[in-house]
Amino acid sequence: MRIVDKQDFPVAQARRYLEPGPVILISSRHAGEHDIMTLGWHTMLAFSPSLVGLMISSGNHSHRLVRGSGVCVINVPTAELIDTVCRIGNTTGAEIDKFSAFGLTTVEAAHVDAPLIHECHACFECRLYDDAMVPGYDLFVFEIVKAHVAPTPTVPEMLHYTGEGVFRLSRDTIERRELFRPELLL
Amino acid sequence: MRIVDKQDFPVAQARRYLEPGPVILISSRHAGEHDIMTLGWHTMLAFSPSLVGLMISSGNHSHRLVRGSGVCVINVPTAELIDTVCRIGNTTGAEIDKFSAFGLTTVEAAHVDAPLIHECHACFECRLYDDAMVPGYDLFVFEIVKAHVAPTPTVPEMLHYTGEGVFRLSRDTIERRELFRPELLL
Repeated sequence: MRIVDKQDFPVAQARRYLEPGPVILISSRHAGEHDIMTLGWHTMLAFSPSLVGLMISSGNHSHRLVRGSGVCVINVPTAELIDTVCRIGNTTGAEIDKFSAFGLTTVEAAHVDAPLIHECHACFECRLYDDAMVPGYDLFVFEIVKAHVAPTPTVPEMLHYTGEGVFRLSRDTIERRELFRPELLL
Repeated sequence: MRIVDKQDFPVAQARRYLEPGPVILISSRHAGEHDIMTLGWHTMLAFSPSLVGLMISSGNHSHRLVRGSGVCVINVPTAELIDTVCRIGNTTGAEIDKFSAFGLTTVEAAHVDAPLIHECHACFECRLYDDAMVPGYDLFVFEIVKAHVAPTPTVPEMLHYTGEGVFRLSRDTIERRELFRPELLL
């Protein structure tokens, strides 16, 4: 796996990578432990502040780390990381260190105490914004406080999970700017 | 646009169409009015009951209808409906009747008072489950109470919005069942 060089990116534009609904990797650290989990249940909630809802099931080892630290990193893997994405989703941080087990490189974040995954196309540093929906739904509202994105391609090929071990790839791009009102071309 | 014949489908498997994160169309009816809106900000929240979170901004005409009726239908359009999807997202139900303006066919739902869009690949009848996050985030938690899905293809080509009038298409499928623990092959 290749390390991906990234640049600063406007947090208000994180939707470009998250709104399409790809599989993401959540990295976290707490009390001397770190972990990664695979996540498909997430949604954008606001542009500014840049808010995202992550459904991190309490059955995941990462839930305890995120709950404890109040921070995490959303990492967007490209399609070529599919095998690693599956392995992360089918093991538990209670038994293995997923960074070393799967040969992933940690990079320190700028604003939060959680590691970025260097092999991912985009990394969003997140701080807990609201945990009111955690008891009922395991739904954390996070604010993206810093974004790191590879400059090319503008949107990478991403993975979209359908269940049953089957993914779709968002490979092709189609644009319809001419059908949009100018004020909606965000 | 072609009418799409659908069959009953298990509500607990709605994730097959929603977890990949496609653009969806929300149809609703209240007090003699009906409307459709385009939505990209949604997430699965539970399998059983089959719960989904929809961020329906209060700036949308549909917000008032959904708030008033407590029900809606999630319709999943295939990629060939892209122009209609854009037109729905760039007009308001306060000014036009989107069903007639865009030549869409209503079908009555079985369990909720909101119209299905006959031209869509999948339609999920939804009943409001929790509105506690509406005041803070315009986030509605709905329970899918009935699912109607076209039998083929298993997963259609869907649209995934990145902003700026640009969509990705989830055209290609890749499977990695051999990397999954059997109990996770849902």
